[in-house]
Amino acid sequence: MSFLNGATVGYDTENNKAVFIDQTLLPLHYCEKSTDDFDEMYDAVKCLKVRGAPAIGVFAGICIAVLINKAETDDGGILLSELENLCADFVTCRPTAVNLKWALEKMLEEGKSSPRDSIKQRLKTLALKMIDDDISVCRKIGEYGAELLKDKDAVLTHCNAGRLAAVKYGTALAPVYISKEQGHSIKVFADETRPLLQGARLTAFELMQEGIDVSLICDNTAASVMAKGKIDAVLVGCDRVARNGDAANKIGTLSVAILAKHYGIPFYVCMPFSTFDFTSSDGSKIVIEEREPCEVTDFWYKERMAPKNVNVLNFAFDVTPSSLITAFITEKGVIMPSELKKYIKKSTEDIF
Amino acid sequence: MSFLNGATVGYDTENNKAVFIDQTLLPLHYCEKSTDDFDEMYDAVKCLKVRGAPAIGVFAGICIAVLINKAETDDGGILLSELENLCADFVTCRPTAVNLKWALEKMLEEGKSSPRDSIKQRLKTLALKMIDDDISVCRKIGEYGAELLKDKDAVLTHCNAGRLAAVKYGTALAPVYISKEQGHSIKVFADETRPLLQGARLTAFELMQEGIDVSLICDNTAASVMAKGKIDAVLVGCDRVARNGDAANKIGTLSVAILAKHYGIPFYVCMPFSTFDFTSSDGSKIVIEEREPCEVTDFWYKERMAPKNVNVLNFAFDVTPSSLITAFITEKGVIMPSELKKYIKKSTEDIF
Repeated sequence: MSFLNGATVGYDTENNKAVFIDQTLLPLHYCEKSTDDFDEMYDAVKCLKVRGAPAIGVFAGICIAVLINKAETDDGGILLSELENLCADFVTCRPTAVNLKWALEKMLEEGKSSPRDSIKQRLKTLALKMIDDDISVCRKIGEYGAELLKDKDAVLTHCNAGRLAAVKYGTALAPVYISKEQGHSIKVFADETRPLLQGARLTAFELMQEGIDVSLICDNTAASVMAKGKIDAVLVGCDRVARNGDAANKIGTLSVAILAKHYGIPFYVCMPFSTFDFTSSDGSKIVIEEREPCEVTDFWYKERMAPKNVNVLNFAFDVTPSSLITAFITEKGVIMPSELKKYIKKSTEDIF
Repeated sequence: MSFLNGATVGYDTENNKAVFIDQTLLPLHYCEKSTDDFDEMYDAVKCLKVRGAPAIGVFAGICIAVLINKAETDDGGILLSELENLCADFVTCRPTAVNLKWALEKMLEEGKSSPRDSIKQRLKTLALKMIDDDISVCRKIGEYGAELLKDKDAVLTHCNAGRLAAVKYGTALAPVYISKEQGHSIKVFADETRPLLQGARLTAFELMQEGIDVSLICDNTAASVMAKGKIDAVLVGCDRVARNGDAANKIGTLSVAILAKHYGIPFYVCMPFSTFDFTSSDGSKIVIEEREPCEVTDFWYKERMAPKNVNVLNFAFDVTPSSLITAFITEKGVIMPSELKKYIKKSTEDIF
């Protein structure tokens, strides 16, 4: 029995559990897990069972709501102090995705501004709203993005920013799904995305499930496919965008952006507006997570392929300078890097 | 007991066997194999037990000499007809590397021009000469290439064009080895090179054996490393260069060349002069081998990671246009793409 029913993460309010697909088991096994345990939640994000910037954000919101609702006390002061501790702990599990920080801050603000006797209920309501909001935001991204594609176009994507990276629809793949709803047939070339193969395992899987024509390629094959004139647009997701438009995303995104520029192919970054981190002035300020060498040297942790003790650089992300980005596709519309300034002013008023 | 003693392929004339390291077992197991069986020889090249354009060429020469010397007849006519058949069969095992074709043509010419009663001896002598020539050619490439590097430089390389891709020294890594002999310390960043991981398995292995500082990266990380200003030059090998300078090499080379251009890093193609194929007018004429999808979807043929029945494009090579190549480093010196014309004229006179 599926609780999630097509979604990637969910909130089982009846049993007060956070529910998620364990994506490390895909595509060979589809397995929904539910938990109300902090360590399991933290591990789920740290070990990429739940991954993708939007999904991580929503999942963090759900987890906080579950943990606070699980508390045996109803004392507002104790709950608030617990909430602060939980948010401070949770934010450390992945440093690059701004959505995690954003969601935890939202939960914290909500707790602080709630009447002391309704903190539990208010956090639960906000977590459920985050789920709904993510779905409608991604749908909007899909609608704006679909306007940039035409029937029979082929897009190249890197990593997984499909529905498995959000609650539904995803970001980079949302335009492909909405195009399909509109009766258009879009072909996708999916970079496998070393070392953890989110493209091979997740993007290929979810597109095949939706009956969309997908071809899997090694990351190093993108240039060849572009050189043959097969790609009309590049669509990628994003983990954090600095004030100047520099965008941090899965390692390899920068490479695809440079190749797209070389071949004159538009390069679109698809993401919720909340991915903008107006507190970072530029990409050099974004902390890039460095992960374990074994992800590179051992295949899926089983068979070692590189020499013992070899040095490995395993950056999880890279930063694509805004000069290589054609546009950001967000739920607020398609934004050119040069237009970012006016949004910064607006949202600084909004947010701060 | 090692027959090869630091070489990659060899000719055991005492037992009339072709000897090679089975590179599919590296870096976990070092295993020398020897054979006088055509099917085993063909399989060794087809399945990348022997790989790297120069090594394939020399190995093919050794194999032909072994097979002809194994023949029970001494009848020159029969031997010649056998030689023609063997060369025609052997050339089909890998279509892209020109060195294979070049070596087989050399053997065939030698057979045809030999007195009928000394074909066996002449082919054996030529095979042994090919081994010696390859070593001295690679050493020359190293010497010319080392002049372009300075102490403490860092180079990025793709695939394996080190000593394991030739008899000794290699092509792309020869400048690194010669620099080391000259007392310079060169750091190497090695692309792992999906799908078959020649960088992770072979380049990292041979450089570590020689005590050279090597860092292994996923192919998609090259852009990040370049963006950080860590790379002073790119050195790659090559399987075939067309008359206009377009160069076919391991899939992903094109991508590295575009990145190098973007960051203003010199991009050198290191190879024996015999890699020029003056019969191909440009890169579009070079046949690109397409290999089995399972190389991409299954890790080292063991654990499947991609969905069943997923479409896969698994080109073994790509073509880097000459406009992206700073220079070819050959045993005849460092040649700019713009200088190729004069060599074409000269060598057309030489060869044809």
